[in-house]
Amino acid sequence: MSKLAIDMNSDLGESFGAWRMGDDALVLSSVSSANVACGYHAGDPAIMRETVKLCLNGGVAIGAHVSYPDLAGFGRRNMACSPDDVYGYCLYQIGALEVFCHAAGTTLQHVKPHGAMYNQAAKDRNLADAIASAVKDTGGDIILMGLAGSEFEPAAKALGVRFASEAFADRAYLEDGSLMPRSREGAVIHDAAVAASRVVQMATKGTVTAGDGTEIRFKPDTICLHGDTKEAVGMAAAVRRALEEAGVMIKPLRETLQ
Amino acid sequence: MSKLAIDMNSDLGESFGAWRMGDDALVLSSVSSANVACGYHAGDPAIMRETVKLCLNGGVAIGAHVSYPDLAGFGRRNMACSPDDVYGYCLYQIGALEVFCHAAGTTLQHVKPHGAMYNQAAKDRNLADAIASAVKDTGGDIILMGLAGSEFEPAAKALGVRFASEAFADRAYLEDGSLMPRSREGAVIHDAAVAASRVVQMATKGTVTAGDGTEIRFKPDTICLHGDTKEAVGMAAAVRRALEEAGVMIKPLRETLQ
Amino acid sequence: MSKLAIDMNSDLGESFGAWRMGDDALVLSSVSSANVACGYHAGDPAIMRETVKLCLNGGVAIGAHVSYPDLAGFGRRNMACSPDDVYGYCLYQIGALEVFCHAAGTTLQHVKPHGAMYNQAAKDRNLADAIASAVKDTGGDIILMGLAGSEFEPAAKALGVRFASEAFADRAYLEDGSLMPRSREGAVIHDAAVAASRVVQMATKGTVTAGDGTEIRFKPDTICLHGDTKEAVGMAAAVRRALEEAGVMIKPLRETLQ
Amino acid sequence: MSKLAIDMNSDLGESFGAWRMGDDALVLSSVSSANVACGYHAGDPAIMRETVKLCLNGGVAIGAHVSYPDLAGFGRRNMACSPDDVYGYCLYQIGALEVFCHAAGTTLQHVKPHGAMYNQAAKDRNLADAIASAVKDTGGDIILMGLAGSEFEPAAKALGVRFASEAFADRAYLEDGSLMPRSREGAVIHDAAVAASRVVQMATKGTVTAGDGTEIRFKPDTICLHGDTKEAVGMAAAVRRALEEAGVMIKPLRETLQ
Repeated sequence: MSKLAIDMNSDLGESFGAWRMGDDALVLSSVSSANVACGYHAGDPAIMRETVKLCLNGGVAIGAHVSYPDLAGFGRRNMACSPDDVYGYCLYQIGALEVFCHAAGTTLQHVKPHGAMYNQAAKDRNLADAIASAVKDTGGDIILMGLAGSEFEPAAKALGVRFASEAFADRAYLEDGSLMPRSREGAVIHDAAVAASRVVQMATKGTVTAGDGTEIRFKPDTICLHGDTKEAVGMAAAVRRALEEAGVMIKPLRETLQ
Repeated sequence: MSKLAIDMNSDLGESFGAWRMGDDALVLSSVSSANVACGYHAGDPAIMRETVKLCLNGGVAIGAHVSYPDLAGFGRRNMACSPDDVYGYCLYQIGALEVFCHAAGTTLQHVKPHGAMYNQAAKDRNLADAIASAVKDTGGDIILMGLAGSEFEPAAKALGVRFASEAFADRAYLEDGSLMPRSREGAVIHDAAVAASRVVQMATKGTVTAGDGTEIRFKPDTICLHGDTKEAVGMAAAVRRALEEAGVMIKPLRETLQ
Repeated sequence: MSKLAIDMNSDLGESFGAWRMGDDALVLSSVSSANVACGYHAGDPAIMRETVKLCLNGGVAIGAHVSYPDLAGFGRRNMACSPDDVYGYCLYQIGALEVFCHAAGTTLQHVKPHGAMYNQAAKDRNLADAIASAVKDTGGDIILMGLAGSEFEPAAKALGVRFASEAFADRAYLEDGSLMPRSREGAVIHDAAVAASRVVQMATKGTVTAGDGTEIRFKPDTICLHGDTKEAVGMAAAVRRALEEAGVMIKPLRETLQ
Repeated sequence: MSKLAIDMNSDLGESFGAWRMGDDALVLSSVSSANVACGYHAGDPAIMRETVKLCLNGGVAIGAHVSYPDLAGFGRRNMACSPDDVYGYCLYQIGALEVFCHAAGTTLQHVKPHGAMYNQAAKDRNLADAIASAVKDTGGDIILMGLAGSEFEPAAKALGVRFASEAFADRAYLEDGSLMPRSREGAVIHDAAVAASRVVQMATKGTVTAGDGTEIRFKPDTICLHGDTKEAVGMAAAVRRALEEAGVMIKPLRETLQ
C-alpha cells in the first residue's frame, strides 16, 4: 500500500524594498511548497533571490505567485485585464522567478495566481486559459496550482498542463465542493484543531463535511495555509502535526502529483 | 580567406503601455541584433512579446536591454545602486525576456546594459562584475555586450562570459580608444556618409581615425545604431549599405563572435 | 437676450517621461477647458508644469484629469477600488495639479475623472460620492465635470459641488439621454460635419436627435473632443467653427456655468 | 526673559499599501513636528490622510517629506535628477500633502527633503535652489527644513523662504559645525542619555562639543529624532524628558522660528 502524502503551500517573499511582511523562516518549517511573490504585488529581485535560497535550504519547492501589476493594492483588487495582458503578466513573472531558481541551482515547481487574479480566473475560463497558456509556454514541466473545482482545472487539462487542486485549511465548503462565501456564518474556520482535523479527513478519506453536514468527495492535491499572522502560523503548524500523526507525509507537489 | 562580417545592433521595443516610441519595423531592416527593453526603462510584457516576434520574423537576434528601475527617467539617470541590486535587476529582466524568447521558439543571444547602467558600469568594475555575474548565472551561453575598452571586458573575461565590444557609428574616439566626451567639438558625427565610411574602416581594416588624426587599432564586434529619429534610421541604412558594398556581411553576434 | 455660450474640453498633458502623446498645442486652439493628466494614468511633474503654462498662454481653463493608479493600462482598465481609495486618489492628484496652477499664477477650474474611473463612477453612486467629496474637500470652488445624466450629477448636488454635464461630440445618444453603447451600429460618429451640426443643435436648441430619431431635451454644459488622432483634431476644429458660425461662443466652464 | 523652546521632528507615515513601518502613534508623543511621506519613497493617499489626522489629533505640526521617485529604494539612493526635475517632484508632493491638510482643516508647516535628496541637495546649491523654489512657489508661508550649515540655508535665504536648521540627536559634529562622517569612530551616538544631554546643551547654551573636544556655537531650530526602532523611540522620549527638565519647551517650528 502506498503511503499517504499531501502538499502544504503558503505565500512567501511578500516583503518589498524597505518593508517587511511575514515571518518567512517560520512559515517554511510547516509547508512543502512556497508561492513566491514576483514583483507585481510584492517582492523585488533582492527579496526573490533571498527567498529562493531560503526555500532551497529549507527543502521547500518553489512556485511563482503571479499577480496583476498592483503594488499599491497588493494584487487584491479586481482589474479588467485582457486575457492577452494576463498571459504576458504571467509569462514575465514566471520567467523572472525561474531565472533566480536556475541561478540557485533549482527549478520552478509550480505557478499559482495571487489574489484578485486567482479569484477572477477561477470563474473566468478565458483568464484561466491565458494563465495555463503562460505556464505551458515556459517550456518547463511546471504545475498550475488553483482552486479545486474551478476553471483552472479544465483550462490546464485542455493544454496538457499538470494541475494541482487546492483547498483552504481555514475555509468551509458547500455541497458542490465550492468555497462557502465569506459572507456566510461559519465560512472561515478560526479553530486550529478543527482546521487540522478537516485537513486530515481530506488527506486520509478524500472527503470533507460540507456546510449542510453531508460528507462529500473532496481530495485536494495541496492545502493552502497562511503565514501573515501569529494565529495563521499556529494553524499551519497544527495542521502539519495532525497530518503527520495521521500518517500523512507532507511532500511537495512534484513528488505527490500523479 | 574567411569572409568579413560584423554585427549591427539597435534598441527596440521601447514603447510602453499606450505610448509608442521608434519605428521598430524600419530599424529591424538594418540591424542583425536588437536590444529589447525589459520593463525597467521601457517595454512591458505585451510589447516584449510583440518585439520578440518581430525580431524572429526579421531574422534579428535578441538581447536583453537591462536597465535601472526608472521608467520616469527612461533609465538615463545615474543611480547609486549596490552591485547586489544591479545583479538582481539584471537577472530579473534577463529571465523575463528569456521566457518570451522560449515561448516564441528562440533563445536570448546577448545582454546589453542600457543608459545610465551602461555608462556607470563601463567605469565601475564592481557594477560590471555584478552584470557579468547575472549573465553567467542565467546558465545560458549568453553574450555580454558593452563599450569597447571598458570595465565590461575584464569583468566578462574573469567569469568566462563571452564579451562583444561595441562601437558607436555616430561617435568620435580618442587616441586611447575611448569615446570622445560629448562636450568636445566633433564628438558626435551627424553625417551619415562619414559615419558609414568610419564603420567600414573598423570592419575591414580594424582601425579608426582618432580625434588627433592618428589611426589606431580598433576592431569592435558590433556597431551601435540608433532608431529614435528619422536621421538615425537613415544613418543605420547608410552604414549597412556601405558595409555590404565593402564586402562586409552583417551577421548577429552569435555567428560572428569567436 | 444673453449670448449663447458653451464649453469645449479635451484631454491634455498625456505624455509621460520620454514618451510623447498628442499634439497639445494644436488641440489647445480648439477648446476652452483642458483635462490635464496628473501622473496616475499619464503625465509627470515636468509635463504637468509645461501643460499648465501652455493652457495659461492659450487662455484655456485647467482641470485635473484624475485616474486610477494604472500607468501601464493608461487608466482605462476597470479596477475594484474602494470609495475611500478613490477619494484619496482624487484628492492627491487634485492637490498635485492645483499647486502647479498656483505656481503659475492661476487656479484649477474643474475635476474630470478619466477612463475607467469615469465609466465606473458614472454608474456607481458610492464612487461618484467619493469623487465629489474629494472635489469639495479641496476647499476651492472647483467644478466636477461628468457624464450628463449619470451618478455624478446627484453626487455633486448632494454635497453642494457645482456640476458640469458633459456630452461627446462623436457619440450617439439613446432616447433617455444615455450614451448609445459602442457595440451598437452608429454609436460612434466619424463624420466631422455631422458631429459639428449635432453639437450646434445641443448648444442652440438644447436638444439632440436620439438613436430612434426622436428629438429629446439635451443641454450639456461642455462638449468633449479628442486630440489623440489627426481625425480627432480635425473634428474638434470643425465643431468649433460650426459653433462660432451659429453664434455660440466657446467659453470655459467658469464663465458659462450657472 | 523669554522662555526657551525648540522643535523636535521625526519621520512619519512611512507605511505603503499593505506594508506597515514604524509605530507612528508612539513617535508622535515625543515630537512637535512630523515629516510625512508623500508617495515617492513611502506613503500613499490613504496613509497620508490617516497620518494627517493622527498629527492633527496629537497637536503635531505637519511637513512634507519630499523624495526622489524611488519606492523600491525608499528614496535612499542618490539619483542624478536635474534641478528642474527636483523642482517638479517637490512641488507635486507638497501639493498632494497640502490638500490632505486642507481637507483636514489644517495647513502645511514645513518641507523637509528625504534621504538621498536631502544628502545631495545639502551639498549642491542648484538642487537646494530648486527645492527652495518649489517651497516658495506653493504660495504658502511654508518653512524649509534642512541640515544646519548646508546649502539649504543660503538657497532659502536668497528666495525669502524661511529656513529651519536641523541637528541630529544621535550624531557627532566637527569643529566647523558639519556632521562627522559616519565612517569615523564616534560619529553615531547610541547612548540616549548622552544624546539627551547634548541636545539640552544645544537648546540652552547654543553650543555643542565637537569631535575634537572644543565647544562651538551651534543653535539648531529643530532636532531630528528617529522612530524606526525601539531604541530610537526610547532616545526620542529621553531627549524630550531631558529638555523639559531643563526648562526647554518642545514647540513646533511655526511657534518658535523667528
